[in-house]
Amino acid sequence: MVITRRDFLAALAVLSATASDTVSCFFASPENPIRVNADRLRQRLEGLSVFGRPPGGTFADGVSRVAFSDADVAGRDYAIRLMKEAGLELRIDAAANIFGRRAGTNSSLPPILFGSHIDSVPNGGNFDGDLGSMSAIEVAHTLYEQGITTRHPLEVVIWTDEEGGLIGSRAAAGELSAQDLERIVRGITIADGLRKLGGNPERMAEAQRAHDSFRCYLELHIEQSGNLDKAGIPIGVVEGIVSIDEYDVVITGFANHAGTTPMLERRNALLAAAKLIEAVQEVVTREPGRQVGTVGHLEVSPNARNVVPGLVRHTIELRDLSAEKIARLAEEVKERAQEVARQTGTTIEITKVEHDPPAQATPEIQANIEKAAASLGLRTIRLPSGAGHDAQMMVRLGSMGMIFVPSVGSISHSPKEFTRWKDCANGANVLLQTILLLDAA
Amino acid sequence: MVITRRDFLAALAVLSATASDTVSCFFASPENPIRVNADRLRQRLEGLSVFGRPPGGTFADGVSRVAFSDADVAGRDYAIRLMKEAGLELRIDAAANIFGRRAGTNSSLPPILFGSHIDSVPNGGNFDGDLGSMSAIEVAHTLYEQGITTRHPLEVVIWTDEEGGLIGSRAAAGELSAQDLERIVRGITIADGLRKLGGNPERMAEAQRAHDSFRCYLELHIEQSGNLDKAGIPIGVVEGIVSIDEYDVVITGFANHAGTTPMLERRNALLAAAKLIEAVQEVVTREPGRQVGTVGHLEVSPNARNVVPGLVRHTIELRDLSAEKIARLAEEVKERAQEVARQTGTTIEITKVEHDPPAQATPEIQANIEKAAASLGLRTIRLPSGAGHDAQMMVRLGSMGMIFVPSVGSISHSPKEFTRWKDCANGANVLLQTILLLDAA
Repeated sequence: MVITRRDFLAALAVLSATASDTVSCFFASPENPIRVNADRLRQRLEGLSVFGRPPGGTFADGVSRVAFSDADVAGRDYAIRLMKEAGLELRIDAAANIFGRRAGTNSSLPPILFGSHIDSVPNGGNFDGDLGSMSAIEVAHTLYEQGITTRHPLEVVIWTDEEGGLIGSRAAAGELSAQDLERIVRGITIADGLRKLGGNPERMAEAQRAHDSFRCYLELHIEQSGNLDKAGIPIGVVEGIVSIDEYDVVITGFANHAGTTPMLERRNALLAAAKLIEAVQEVVTREPGRQVGTVGHLEVSPNARNVVPGLVRHTIELRDLSAEKIARLAEEVKERAQEVARQTGTTIEITKVEHDPPAQATPEIQANIEKAAASLGLRTIRLPSGAGHDAQMMVRLGSMGMIFVPSVGSISHSPKEFTRWKDCANGANVLLQTILLLDAA
Repeated sequence: MVITRRDFLAALAVLSATASDTVSCFFASPENPIRVNADRLRQRLEGLSVFGRPPGGTFADGVSRVAFSDADVAGRDYAIRLMKEAGLELRIDAAANIFGRRAGTNSSLPPILFGSHIDSVPNGGNFDGDLGSMSAIEVAHTLYEQGITTRHPLEVVIWTDEEGGLIGSRAAAGELSAQDLERIVRGITIADGLRKLGGNPERMAEAQRAHDSFRCYLELHIEQSGNLDKAGIPIGVVEGIVSIDEYDVVITGFANHAGTTPMLERRNALLAAAKLIEAVQEVVTREPGRQVGTVGHLEVSPNARNVVPGLVRHTIELRDLSAEKIARLAEEVKERAQEVARQTGTTIEITKVEHDPPAQATPEIQANIEKAAASLGLRTIRLPSGAGHDAQMMVRLGSMGMIFVPSVGSISHSPKEFTRWKDCANGANVLLQTILLLDAA
């Protein structure tokens, strides 16, 4: 690493003002890597949690900081204040993404970009997005107050509306369409939502970042799954973000009187749906692997106690790091659906409505995350991310890596979402060390 | 039968005015039973169908004559006019039931009560209720114009709001509660609905009829099932109306992220519901008989594409002429539910929310319906009614019998509901002959 004159003078000033007789903490060494301020990180997560907290609630009651809400605005203001305190130069782009930049010693190098989001799902938790955002600011703050200047510029980012479809990072990847902007969510168009946050939907093209306009993108996030928690391993090195295929299913039977239609003459769309839900489960669990398949949304028509269901609409979602595997599983589900249709006298239409390709994390970054964790004495495993993240948009533009920390009980998108404070600090420290390693590499 | 002086003179008058040299049609004989006017019956069914017809539609587009709607008011006015034309003396009771009475030759005898309802389900057909109502009026009209006076008084009834829960006949049986009256359906309380139709909810007790205050209650109805249509038999003799047990099911799993929750760790309430729906189907169809079991209503929570369902609420309805059989089937379903709960890591609560006891038709009436059909050369079978009818309320007060005619394709509660005109006339003629047989017995 490079020690600048300014950093050296800052260290000297701190040393003069304290009783300490070493300055080793200012200059990261393999033997004693510098650390973030774990207490401050916790305070800031708790500080952020009040914006969107249920009235009369506590930290444990979670948060509803849905994008474009007043709570989102207040939470962003809080983050902006912290970013300024961390010595970052603020910029809000056309997609309302918040960037905080700090110059490096070599202005010809692209920045190391790192961050997450602070919007939540309704009735969500205080770690999803928040941990990565507050840790990114904490890392910048630690470097700032310890007077460490990296070679590359540093750029902290708080992405807009991750939970609503990776809106901010999608815009940065140049993949937010005019149609997306006009989509209405909770009574407001995305465009108006962005305006409310200080964005400018008319100049959305300006939010698009060029390919390789950053050294790499790094994101710390809670795992939202139970692998780390159960294995007792503090750091997950993300191999990639899974591919997601979304299907809509329409099952057409015939609605008839539940009292007068004999069992064998029914064309019961809900019975067909039941068989298909079981088929999805069987197909997905029959072979080893981490693939998942979910029927999460289902509607029955006419949905009356005394009428044989004539129509069912439901979704099927398949996820795996291998796009080929979920395509093959979908074919098997479709074959099973045809059997079910024959058995039940219904027709079943299955339409693919969305395909998210997998987003592979860059091997170099994965290796450096492992190295960083090792320098802190923290064990790691590699694993896929079953959830989508802004990182999957950044992979379209350049290198990407993600650090996972354990979710207690694998709970997420819930007020019960929790990551131990020690694990939060570990994640932030691994983020810091990874940045320093990649900066030096 | 008794031929009154008035009838004799009426017959003489008709005979004098025509070229006919017989009056056999006036006096029913085993060789040549009198018949209703089939053309007039059809005209009146078609006439009634315009009240509640979809705008711009035809007879084939069905009807929405939901109780208490303006269409219901108009349809009732139409029925009242026809009842007056049939020489009936009108009375509307506190439950807005319309009664049309004609005196018999023996005023000490209780009336023969017969009729049905003219309210429909939303987007229903032109035969359910309408056929029994228009046929009852047609029978009275035929007797009136042919100058035939029965020994018993005759009482035609159009019950109020059958489809909404047998409201009018329930009041007549003394089983309509104050709570029922305050129930809001489509933005109006039952009490206000009754007021709109000329009823008087404050004096509901006056609608209650005494036990054995009628010789018997007779109702002609479409089968709403396919037994008669498939067998090519024109008349069904109803053995009874099935017992109905209604259950509410609550399946509690755990809502979690569909991307990050491994398949084997899910507590998927919708997967449990799927297994339970199949279990209901298996338990109900495993043994011979006419029992039916239906899961008609189902709701998923949070019902999002990317969330493992945490909660499902659904109904189970079981019907059979034997209350014991459906109680036993329910026990089997409950046992299966406990297996499903164990397999899926969910909890399943099943609560009985309604029990309608079976309503057995009176053997004497069944025998007389068969005799009446035989006198008309019409074949019959005995069968249960899988649907509920006002007749099940009347059985609490006295003797009851129901006549079924074929539903084409077993379709009911649909604009496609249809009964051939010949079958409509057959049903009305069997009703007429049954009345004459029971009057004489």
